[in-house]
Amino acid sequence: MNFMGSNGGTIWFSGLHGSGKTTIANALAEKLREKGVAVVLLDGDVIRERVSADLGYSKEERNTHIKRVAGICEIITSNNVLNIACVASPTQEVRDYAKKIIPVFLEVYVKCPLEVCEKRDVKGHYMKARAREKGFENFLGVNLPYEEPKNPDLVLCTDRKNPKESVERLFNFLLEKQWIQP
Amino acid sequence: MNFMGSNGGTIWFSGLHGSGKTTIANALAEKLREKGVAVVLLDGDVIRERVSADLGYSKEERNTHIKRVAGICEIITSNNVLNIACVASPTQEVRDYAKKIIPVFLEVYVKCPLEVCEKRDVKGHYMKARAREKGFENFLGVNLPYEEPKNPDLVLCTDRKNPKESVERLFNFLLEKQWIQP
Repeated sequence: MNFMGSNGGTIWFSGLHGSGKTTIANALAEKLREKGVAVVLLDGDVIRERVSADLGYSKEERNTHIKRVAGICEIITSNNVLNIACVASPTQEVRDYAKKIIPVFLEVYVKCPLEVCEKRDVKGHYMKARAREKGFENFLGVNLPYEEPKNPDLVLCTDRKNPKESVERLFNFLLEKQWIQP
Repeated sequence: MNFMGSNGGTIWFSGLHGSGKTTIANALAEKLREKGVAVVLLDGDVIRERVSADLGYSKEERNTHIKRVAGICEIITSNNVLNIACVASPTQEVRDYAKKIIPVFLEVYVKCPLEVCEKRDVKGHYMKARAREKGFENFLGVNLPYEEPKNPDLVLCTDRKNPKESVERLFNFLLEKQWIQP
Protein backbone atom coordinates (compact mmCIF):
# COMPACT_ATOMS: atom_id res chain seq x y z
CA MET A 1 0.00 0.00 0.00
CA ASN A 2 1.34 3.42 -0.95
CA PHE A 3 -0.15 5.93 1.46
CA MET A 4 -1.97 8.77 -0.21
CA GLY A 5 -3.66 11.46 1.83
CA SER A 6 -6.89 13.42 1.63
CA ASN A 7 -8.24 16.45 3.44
CA GLY A 8 -11.77 15.19 3.00
CA GLY A 9 -14.76 16.29 0.97
CA THR A 10 -18.00 14.97 -0.47
CA ILE A 11 -18.26 13.46 -3.92
CA TRP A 12 -21.98 13.71 -4.66
CA PHE A 13 -23.26 11.33 -7.34
CA SER A 14 -26.53 12.21 -8.99
CA GLY A 15 -28.24 10.29 -11.78
CA LEU A 16 -31.14 8.05 -12.74
CA HIS A 17 -31.64 4.59 -11.28
CA GLY A 18 -29.45 2.20 -13.23
CA SER A 19 -27.12 4.94 -14.47
CA GLY A 20 -24.23 3.27 -12.64
CA LYS A 21 -23.78 5.46 -9.54
CA THR A 22 -23.29 2.61 -7.07
CA THR A 23 -21.07 0.56 -9.38
CA ILE A 24 -18.73 3.49 -9.99
CA ALA A 25 -18.82 4.61 -6.35
CA ASN A 26 -17.90 1.15 -5.08
CA ALA A 27 -15.06 0.76 -7.56
CA LEU A 28 -13.74 4.24 -6.75
CA ALA A 29 -13.90 3.53 -2.99
CA GLU A 30 -12.00 0.28 -3.50
CA LYS A 31 -9.31 2.01 -5.55
CA LEU A 32 -8.93 4.76 -2.95
CA ARG A 33 -8.65 2.23 -0.11
CA GLU A 34 -5.97 0.34 -2.01
CA LYS A 35 -3.99 3.59 -2.05
CA GLY A 36 -4.46 4.04 1.68
CA VAL A 37 -7.14 6.74 1.51
CA ALA A 38 -9.96 6.33 4.05
CA VAL A 39 -13.34 6.85 2.42
CA VAL A 40 -16.96 6.45 3.51
CA LEU A 41 -19.49 5.38 0.91
CA LEU A 42 -22.97 6.61 1.75
CA ASP A 43 -25.59 4.74 -0.19
CA GLY A 44 -29.01 6.39 -0.15
CA ASP A 45 -30.82 3.06 0.23
CA VAL A 46 -28.71 1.99 3.21
CA ILE A 47 -29.20 5.36 4.92
CA ARG A 48 -32.93 5.02 4.35
CA GLU A 49 -32.92 1.82 6.40
CA ARG A 50 -30.73 3.09 9.20
CA VAL A 51 -31.60 6.76 9.51
CA SER A 52 -34.71 7.55 7.45
CA ALA A 53 -36.86 4.53 8.26
CA ASP A 54 -39.61 6.97 9.25
CA LEU A 55 -39.82 8.46 5.77
CA GLY A 56 -41.77 7.44 2.67
CA TYR A 57 -41.35 8.45 -0.97
CA SER A 58 -43.41 11.63 -1.36
CA LYS A 59 -41.55 14.64 -2.74
CA GLU A 60 -41.30 16.20 0.71
CA GLU A 61 -40.12 13.01 2.38
CA ARG A 62 -37.52 12.43 -0.33
CA ASN A 63 -36.21 15.94 0.22
CA THR A 64 -36.01 15.40 3.97
CA HIS A 65 -34.10 12.16 3.37
CA ILE A 66 -31.65 13.77 0.96
CA LYS A 67 -31.10 16.63 3.40
CA ARG A 68 -30.23 14.13 6.14
CA VAL A 69 -27.75 12.44 3.80
CA ALA A 70 -26.25 15.87 3.08
CA GLY A 71 -26.02 16.50 6.84
CA ILE A 72 -24.08 13.28 7.34
CA CYS A 73 -21.78 14.21 4.44
CA GLU A 74 -21.19 17.60 6.02
CA ILE A 75 -20.22 16.05 9.36
CA ILE A 76 -17.81 13.57 7.74
CA THR A 77 -16.31 16.28 5.52
CA SER A 78 -15.83 18.56 8.54
CA ASN A 79 -13.81 15.68 10.02
CA ASN A 80 -11.54 15.84 6.95
CA VAL A 81 -12.61 12.42 5.74
CA LEU A 82 -13.44 11.72 2.09
CA ASN A 83 -16.98 10.49 1.42
CA ILE A 84 -19.10 9.54 -1.55
CA ALA A 85 -22.87 10.00 -1.55
CA CYS A 86 -25.00 7.94 -3.93
CA VAL A 87 -28.48 9.40 -3.96
CA ALA A 88 -30.66 9.98 -6.98
CA SER A 89 -31.23 13.62 -5.80
CA PRO A 90 -33.53 14.52 -8.70
CA THR A 91 -33.92 18.29 -8.22
CA GLN A 92 -31.52 21.19 -8.59
CA GLU A 93 -32.94 22.63 -5.37
CA VAL A 94 -31.93 19.68 -3.21
CA ARG A 95 -28.50 19.40 -4.83
CA ASP A 96 -27.96 23.11 -4.25
CA TYR A 97 -28.86 22.59 -0.59
CA ALA A 98 -26.20 19.87 -0.31
CA LYS A 99 -23.67 22.09 -2.07
CA LYS A 100 -24.46 24.94 0.30
CA ILE A 101 -24.05 23.06 3.57
CA ILE A 102 -21.12 20.80 2.65
CA PRO A 103 -17.85 22.77 2.87
CA VAL A 104 -15.95 20.74 0.24
CA PHE A 105 -18.26 19.50 -2.49
CA LEU A 106 -17.99 17.90 -5.90
CA GLU A 107 -21.10 17.30 -7.99
CA VAL A 108 -20.74 14.34 -10.33
CA TYR A 109 -23.50 13.73 -12.83
CA VAL A 110 -23.65 10.06 -13.76
CA LYS A 111 -25.33 10.53 -17.11
CA CYS A 112 -27.12 7.82 -19.02
CA PRO A 113 -30.21 8.02 -21.28
CA LEU A 114 -33.40 6.76 -19.66
CA GLU A 115 -33.84 4.10 -22.40
CA VAL A 116 -30.44 2.62 -21.57
CA CYS A 117 -31.07 2.64 -17.79
CA GLU A 118 -34.44 1.03 -18.40
CA LYS A 119 -32.97 -1.62 -20.66
CA ARG A 120 -30.38 -2.48 -17.98
CA ASP A 121 -33.08 -2.56 -15.26
CA VAL A 122 -30.66 -4.35 -12.91
CA LYS A 123 -33.13 -4.51 -10.05
CA GLY A 124 -36.29 -4.92 -12.14
CA HIS A 125 -37.62 -1.65 -10.72
CA TYR A 126 -38.38 0.02 -14.06
CA MET A 127 -40.60 -2.88 -15.04
CA LYS A 128 -42.48 -2.54 -11.77
CA ALA A 129 -42.82 1.21 -12.21
CA ARG A 130 -44.16 0.79 -15.77
CA ALA A 131 -46.60 -1.83 -14.46
CA ARG A 132 -47.67 0.73 -11.81
CA GLU A 133 -46.90 -1.70 -9.00
CA LYS A 134 -47.49 -0.58 -5.44
CA GLY A 135 -44.46 1.17 -3.95
CA PHE A 136 -43.25 2.30 -7.38
CA GLU A 137 -45.73 5.15 -7.92
CA ASN A 138 -42.99 7.78 -7.66
CA PHE A 139 -40.24 6.21 -9.71
CA LEU A 140 -37.60 8.53 -11.10
CA GLY A 141 -37.68 8.93 -14.87
CA VAL A 142 -41.01 7.10 -15.13
CA ASN A 143 -43.54 8.98 -13.00
CA LEU A 144 -41.23 11.47 -11.34
CA PRO A 145 -39.12 13.95 -13.32
CA TYR A 146 -35.34 14.02 -13.05
CA GLU A 147 -33.87 17.52 -13.44
CA GLU A 148 -30.45 17.28 -15.03
CA PRO A 149 -27.68 19.01 -13.03
CA LYS A 150 -27.18 22.52 -14.45
CA ASN A 151 -23.51 22.91 -13.73
CA PRO A 152 -21.93 19.69 -12.42
CA ASP A 153 -18.19 19.55 -11.73
CA LEU A 154 -17.88 16.37 -13.75
CA VAL A 155 -20.10 14.40 -16.12
CA LEU A 156 -19.59 10.66 -16.54
CA CYS A 157 -21.44 9.27 -19.57
CA THR A 158 -21.96 5.65 -18.65
CA ASP A 159 -23.59 4.66 -21.92
CA ARG A 160 -20.34 5.42 -23.72
CA LYS A 161 -17.68 4.58 -21.14
CA ASN A 162 -17.36 1.44 -19.06
CA PRO A 163 -17.17 1.66 -15.26
CA LYS A 164 -13.39 1.21 -15.20
CA GLU A 165 -12.91 4.19 -17.53
CA SER A 166 -15.28 6.32 -15.46
CA VAL A 167 -13.46 5.46 -12.23
CA GLU A 168 -10.12 6.27 -13.85
CA ARG A 169 -11.42 9.66 -15.03
CA LEU A 170 -12.82 10.52 -11.61
CA PHE A 171 -9.68 9.36 -9.81
CA ASN A 172 -7.50 11.55 -12.04
CA PHE A 173 -9.90 14.45 -11.52
CA LEU A 174 -9.49 14.08 -7.73
CA LEU A 175 -5.72 14.10 -8.14
CA GLU A 176 -5.80 17.21 -10.37
CA LYS A 177 -8.04 19.04 -7.92
CA GLN A 178 -5.79 17.89 -5.05
CA TRP A 179 -8.63 16.19 -3.23
CA ILE A 180 -6.15 13.34 -2.87
CA GLN A 181 -2.41 13.76 -2.62
CA PRO A 182 0.35 11.28 -3.50
CA MET B 1 3.31 12.51 10.35
CA ASN B 2 3.93 8.84 10.97
CA PHE B 3 1.17 6.92 9.25
CA MET B 4 -0.74 4.58 11.49
CA GLY B 5 -3.57 2.49 10.15
CA SER B 6 -6.98 1.44 11.39
CA ASN B 7 -9.54 -1.07 10.21
CA GLY B 8 -12.33 1.03 11.61
CA GLY B 9 -14.75 0.67 14.47
CA THR B 10 -16.97 2.72 16.75
CA ILE B 11 -15.79 4.11 20.08
CA TRP B 12 -19.05 4.81 21.89
CA PHE B 13 -18.83 7.33 24.72
CA SER B 14 -21.56 7.25 27.33
CA GLY B 15 -21.81 9.43 30.40
CA LEU B 16 -23.61 12.31 32.09
CA HIS B 17 -23.62 15.85 30.72
CA GLY B 18 -20.42 17.51 31.82
CA SER B 19 -18.60 14.22 32.41
CA GLY B 20 -16.06 15.17 29.74
CA LYS B 21 -17.14 13.07 26.74
CA THR B 22 -16.69 15.79 24.13
CA THR B 23 -13.42 17.09 25.59
CA ILE B 24 -11.84 13.63 25.60
CA ALA B 25 -13.29 12.71 22.19
CA ASN B 26 -11.95 15.88 20.57
CA ALA B 27 -8.49 15.41 22.08
CA LEU B 28 -8.42 11.75 21.05
CA ALA B 29 -9.50 12.62 17.48
CA GLU B 30 -6.76 15.24 17.27
CA LYS B 31 -4.11 12.79 18.51
CA LEU B 32 -5.26 10.15 16.02
CA ARG B 33 -5.18 12.62 13.13
CA GLU B 34 -1.67 13.68 14.07
CA LYS B 35 -0.68 10.03 13.67
CA GLY B 36 -2.34 9.86 10.24
CA VAL B 37 -5.46 7.94 11.31
CA ALA B 38 -8.69 9.16 9.71
CA VAL B 39 -11.45 9.47 12.29
CA VAL B 40 -15.00 10.83 12.30
CA LEU B 41 -16.28 12.42 15.50
CA LEU B 42 -20.05 12.17 15.78
CA ASP B 43 -21.40 14.58 18.34
CA GLY B 44 -24.97 13.86 19.40
CA ASP B 45 -25.90 17.55 19.43
CA VAL B 46 -24.57 18.16 15.92
CA ILE B 47 -26.39 15.11 14.57
CA ARG B 48 -29.57 16.37 16.22
CA GLU B 49 -29.36 19.53 14.13
CA ARG B 50 -28.50 17.86 10.85
CA VAL B 51 -30.34 14.55 10.97
CA SER B 52 -32.79 14.51 13.89
CA ALA B 53 -34.23 18.01 13.65
CA ASP B 54 -37.69 16.39 13.61
CA LEU B 55 -37.21 14.86 17.07
CA GLY B 56 -37.81 16.24 20.57
CA TYR B 57 -36.60 15.02 23.94
CA SER B 58 -39.19 12.47 25.04
CA LYS B 59 -37.84 9.03 25.94
CA GLU B 60 -39.06 7.60 22.64
CA GLU B 61 -37.64 10.43 20.56
CA ARG B 62 -34.31 10.23 22.35
CA ASN B 63 -34.16 6.52 21.58
CA THR B 64 -34.95 7.13 17.91
CA HIS B 65 -32.20 9.75 17.78
CA ILE B 66 -29.63 7.46 19.41
CA LYS B 67 -30.59 4.66 17.03
CA ARG B 68 -29.96 6.96 14.07
CA VAL B 69 -26.56 7.85 15.48
CA ALA B 70 -25.85 4.13 15.87
CA GLY B 71 -26.92 3.61 12.25
CA ILE B 72 -24.45 6.23 11.05
CA CYS B 73 -21.70 4.63 13.17
CA GLU B 74 -22.52 1.28 11.63
CA ILE B 75 -22.21 2.65 8.09
CA ILE B 76 -18.88 4.35 8.82
CA THR B 77 -17.54 1.25 10.58
CA SER B 78 -18.59 -0.94 7.66
CA ASN B 79 -16.42 1.36 5.52
CA ASN B 80 -13.46 0.52 7.79
CA VAL B 81 -13.20 4.04 9.13
CA LEU B 82 -12.72 4.78 12.82
CA ASN B 83 -15.44 6.86 14.46
CA ILE B 84 -16.26 8.21 17.89
CA ALA B 85 -19.84 8.74 19.04
CA CYS B 86 -20.57 11.18 21.86
CA VAL B 87 -24.14 10.66 22.98
CA ALA B 88 -25.38 10.54 26.53
CA SER B 89 -27.20 7.22 25.72
CA PRO B 90 -28.67 6.83 29.22
CA THR B 91 -30.14 3.31 29.03
CA GLN B 92 -28.57 -0.11 28.78
CA GLU B 93 -31.20 -1.00 26.20
CA VAL B 94 -30.16 1.67 23.72
CA ARG B 95 -26.44 0.99 24.23
CA ASP B 96 -27.08 -2.71 23.66
CA TYR B 97 -28.87 -1.83 20.42
CA ALA B 98 -25.81 0.12 19.26
CA LYS B 99 -23.52 -2.75 20.26
CA LYS B 100 -25.71 -5.19 18.36
CA ILE B 101 -25.82 -3.37 15.04
CA ILE B 102 -22.26 -1.98 14.95
CA PRO B 103 -19.84 -4.71 13.84
CA VAL B 104 -16.79 -3.35 15.71
CA PHE B 105 -17.76 -1.66 18.94
CA LEU B 106 -16.10 -0.32 22.06
CA GLU B 107 -18.17 0.98 24.95
CA VAL B 108 -16.39 3.65 26.95
CA TYR B 109 -18.02 4.86 30.13
CA VAL B 110 -16.95 8.41 30.93
CA LYS B 111 -17.63 8.26 34.64
CA CYS B 112 -18.00 11.26 36.88
CA PRO B 113 -20.21 11.76 39.96
CA LEU B 114 -23.29 13.88 39.32
CA GLU B 115 -22.21 16.45 41.95
CA VAL B 116 -18.94 17.04 40.09
CA CYS B 117 -20.66 17.32 36.68
CA GLU B 118 -23.16 19.71 38.20
CA LYS B 119 -20.45 21.83 39.82
CA ARG B 120 -18.64 22.08 36.46
CA ASP B 121 -21.91 22.96 34.67
CA VAL B 122 -19.94 24.17 31.64
CA LYS B 123 -23.04 25.07 29.61
CA GLY B 124 -25.19 26.19 32.55
CA HIS B 125 -27.69 23.43 31.73
CA TYR B 126 -27.81 21.87 35.20
CA MET B 127 -28.83 25.19 36.69
CA LYS B 128 -31.62 25.49 34.14
CA ALA B 129 -32.76 21.92 34.82
CA ARG B 130 -32.84 22.57 38.59
CA ALA B 131 -34.80 25.76 37.96
CA ARG B 132 -37.22 23.69 35.86
CA GLU B 133 -36.73 25.93 32.85
CA LYS B 134 -38.64 25.14 29.68
CA GLY B 135 -36.72 22.75 27.43
CA PHE B 136 -34.88 21.19 30.38
CA GLU B 137 -37.72 19.06 31.75
CA ASN B 138 -35.96 15.83 30.78
CA PHE B 139 -32.42 16.52 31.85
CA LEU B 140 -30.17 13.57 32.50
CA GLY B 141 -29.21 13.07 36.13
CA VAL B 142 -31.72 15.68 37.28
CA ASN B 143 -35.17 14.60 36.12
CA LEU B 144 -34.19 11.66 33.93
CA PRO B 145 -32.29 8.65 35.28
CA TYR B 146 -28.91 7.60 33.90
CA GLU B 147 -28.35 3.86 33.96
CA GLU B 148 -24.65 3.14 34.45
CA PRO B 149 -23.15 0.82 31.80
CA LYS B 150 -23.17 -2.74 33.13
CA ASN B 151 -20.13 -4.03 31.38
CA PRO B 152 -18.23 -1.29 29.53
CA ASP B 153 -14.96 -2.09 27.75
CA LEU B 154 -13.26 0.82 29.45
CA VAL B 155 -14.10 3.21 32.29
CA LEU B 156 -12.54 6.67 32.40
CA CYS B 157 -12.98 8.38 35.78
CA THR B 158 -12.80 12.04 34.91
CA ASP B 159 -13.06 13.29 38.47
CA ARG B 160 -9.74 11.64 39.25
CA LYS B 161 -7.84 11.87 35.97
CA ASN B 162 -7.36 14.91 33.75
CA PRO B 163 -8.38 14.79 30.07
CA LYS B 164 -4.80 14.26 28.89
CA GLU B 165 -4.43 11.15 31.09
CA SER B 166 -7.79 9.80 29.90
CA VAL B 167 -6.84 10.28 26.24
CA GLU B 168 -3.49 8.57 26.84
CA ARG B 169 -5.21 5.60 28.47
CA LEU B 170 -7.75 5.26 25.67
CA PHE B 171 -5.09 5.63 22.97
CA ASN B 172 -2.99 2.86 24.55
CA PHE B 173 -6.09 0.71 24.87
CA LEU B 174 -6.76 1.12 21.12
CA LEU B 175 -3.16 0.09 20.40
CA GLU B 176 -3.37 -2.97 22.68
CA LYS B 177 -6.65 -4.07 21.09
CA GLN B 178 -5.14 -3.42 17.63
CA TRP B 179 -7.84 -0.97 16.67
CA ILE B 180 -4.94 1.15 15.46
CA GLN B 181 -1.69 -0.21 14.12
CA PRO B 182 1.74 1.44 14.06
